[in-house]
Amino acid sequence: MSDLPQLLSVAAARDRILEHFQPLEAEELPLSHCAGRVLARDLAAPHDLPPFGNSSMDGYAVRAAEVSAAATDRPVALPVSGDIPAGGGLPPALAIGTAARIMTGAPLPPGADAVVPVEDTDESRDRAGRPLPARVAIFRPAAGGANVRPVGQDVRAGEIVAPASTVLGPASIGVLAALGYSVLPVFRRPRVAVFSTGDELRAIEEPLEPGQIHDSNSHALAAAVAACGAEAVRLGVARDQLESVRGRLAEARAAGAQLILSSAGVSVGAYDVVKAAVEAEGGLRFWRVRMRPGKPLAFGHVGGVPFFGLPGNPVSALITFEVFVRPAILKLAGRRAWGRLALQAELLESLPSDGRETYMRVIVEERAGRYVARAAGDQGSAVMSTLVRANGLLVLPEGLTEARAGQQFSVWLLDGAEIAASAV
Amino acid sequence: MSDLPQLLSVAAARDRILEHFQPLEAEELPLSHCAGRVLARDLAAPHDLPPFGNSSMDGYAVRAAEVSAAATDRPVALPVSGDIPAGGGLPPALAIGTAARIMTGAPLPPGADAVVPVEDTDESRDRAGRPLPARVAIFRPAAGGANVRPVGQDVRAGEIVAPASTVLGPASIGVLAALGYSVLPVFRRPRVAVFSTGDELRAIEEPLEPGQIHDSNSHALAAAVAACGAEAVRLGVARDQLESVRGRLAEARAAGAQLILSSAGVSVGAYDVVKAAVEAEGGLRFWRVRMRPGKPLAFGHVGGVPFFGLPGNPVSALITFEVFVRPAILKLAGRRAWGRLALQAELLESLPSDGRETYMRVIVEERAGRYVARAAGDQGSAVMSTLVRANGLLVLPEGLTEARAGQQFSVWLLDGAEIAASAV
Repeated sequence: MSDLPQLLSVAAARDRILEHFQPLEAEELPLSHCAGRVLARDLAAPHDLPPFGNSSMDGYAVRAAEVSAAATDRPVALPVSGDIPAGGGLPPALAIGTAARIMTGAPLPPGADAVVPVEDTDESRDRAGRPLPARVAIFRPAAGGANVRPVGQDVRAGEIVAPASTVLGPASIGVLAALGYSVLPVFRRPRVAVFSTGDELRAIEEPLEPGQIHDSNSHALAAAVAACGAEAVRLGVARDQLESVRGRLAEARAAGAQLILSSAGVSVGAYDVVKAAVEAEGGLRFWRVRMRPGKPLAFGHVGGVPFFGLPGNPVSALITFEVFVRPAILKLAGRRAWGRLALQAELLESLPSDGRETYMRVIVEERAGRYVARAAGDQGSAVMSTLVRANGLLVLPEGLTEARAGQQFSVWLLDGAEIAASAV
Repeated sequence: MSDLPQLLSVAAARDRILEHFQPLEAEELPLSHCAGRVLARDLAAPHDLPPFGNSSMDGYAVRAAEVSAAATDRPVALPVSGDIPAGGGLPPALAIGTAARIMTGAPLPPGADAVVPVEDTDESRDRAGRPLPARVAIFRPAAGGANVRPVGQDVRAGEIVAPASTVLGPASIGVLAALGYSVLPVFRRPRVAVFSTGDELRAIEEPLEPGQIHDSNSHALAAAVAACGAEAVRLGVARDQLESVRGRLAEARAAGAQLILSSAGVSVGAYDVVKAAVEAEGGLRFWRVRMRPGKPLAFGHVGGVPFFGLPGNPVSALITFEVFVRPAILKLAGRRAWGRLALQAELLESLPSDGRETYMRVIVEERAGRYVARAAGDQGSAVMSTLVRANGLLVLPEGLTEARAGQQFSVWLLDGAEIAASAV
């Protein structure tokens, strides 16, 4: 590949990167292990839901027409011809002119078309579980269909209840369980290997000598990988030496990683080390993306496994991850939408911009039903604490030379963002 | 406790419930296991960050005043008095009238106050790694402080970098790693036991006989528990018999659950079974909350472990979970904010309301920077597929008899919500 950095917009760089990713293969997992996973194909209902008409109340199954005249002072009294517990099999048809005691969730007997709640009869909740009465007095009419959940009300047989790429949450898990899906086809979780490079880096357990700093990027990036729902394999630190970087790449491949991330080493001295190590087994390309915070972005592959060389600067590493790596991981994971949840917010301060697409660390607040955003602190690309305080990234689009107070911009909400009400 | 259901607003019921929950004790975990966990106490910086002034570029450390006259056609040539790699210890002071080659991240030598990027010299990136030149020609001036990250720029020693209750994401993990926190105090993850009750329920692996349905609630609720960051212990199904329910409660306690959830059995027939089982070892109270979808809410404890008796209706179970159980779990987990991320959205259709606080399953979309919401489908409380389609819950406040199209309401965004642009 050519060494000349190409000048690309953020969107163009992301598009080129995403071309290299396809969803991983599917695997079958017990439904009870599928929360948060991504469905690998459309799932249809094998039967109606509910599978049979049933009562939504404890009460008496009746023919609505037979109780239409019921009133508190003129109750309709009916012989009780049956007792229908939940889970007791299909009941016989309701004899004309009678009522059948029925529990919530129990099948409606053929012939009945409504349920009178127990509260509207001379039976009462206090006497639940007592022997079946011979007759029941009904104090209020029930409309046809009252307190009945008809067969197929929720889902019809054959209907797609969860399309491929659904992220399986409580509701979809619940519907699929109700339909008897004990095993689900889900995309495999991406496994992402992460390492840092730099002779000045020490593991967090190690004491620092003068001139050394702790490796934080491998931890921050592993947390970012995990927040995407993927599995992070943290390989720690590589020295600024060819064999050390090659060793990490070999470990990443041995771990079965489908994506490899390194940080730092994308600068003059070490540049060639990462480049040489990656190119020895694949290829690497440096792109100059028109974005802030921005560095040349290195993207390539090691033996066919996609590789990102991220900036060493912690803020730049995490924002580059957000903009390029997270969409790639979500695509690998089988998801269809790769963007962050974004709000439109009014910028509260005027700011210069240099025409590059700029990701500002901001605090978004709500003010009378609208959203306002202000800088979360010093926007210097080495100031990580500003990113800790931020709940969003405000995107100043390419070509803008000034962002004025009062203008609306899109803000990507970061994981776990909470939005406070503005004091003003 | 009294058996008479109390009539309570949602807020009053939630307040009463939350009184019974306090954050769990803290534990110490390796930082690499802390992504998504909740910090148990304020953490301060043990040292400045960066710990020493360093270069943000590969280049030459200089005294800015000595290169102020540099220009492309009149370069300033300085003898090169040193070579400062990253991680190589603290360099000696910069001799007056000289420059020192310096790598990104390497400590700035005493005396130097700026770094001239290698691109602004007669050295070039292409010759990285070559022997140290005797002299360097500088083509552009550097302002004082240029390309220098001063000591403490990001964080000052003693500053609180992560307050208690921080949910540990990539940025906070990164800063704490940079500060050498290899072990963090985090709140224990709540363990929540979940079971369903009902003679009509069969496990999802079992075939259905007529009149039976699959247990879906224990799966849906376990997924909801997991989505809160807690650990779900799914105990399956209890029969509508005292000993069966007591058996599940005993299993929940044996598993060390800090919270127990059951669903169904909160109706006439089975009501007393759950009540009797819970009261045999604790206490249970039924509240009538002014909300839709709504059922009497049962809350109490089993041997001191908080217990919720949720509705059997799957939609009601999940919405009751959202409104009451999720905040309780988040409080147990040590979090300070228990609400969902909420947007203000314009309702697109007029709807009647009965004065109770109502949680509508809606689809929120963006339309020209504003948000609009429409019903996700049939709002019947047995229609789970509407909740599958929804990305939010629109809250109609108490006391409202009609929600009119065009009014703004708060919408709780559900996990993983994606917001599409509206076609108008």
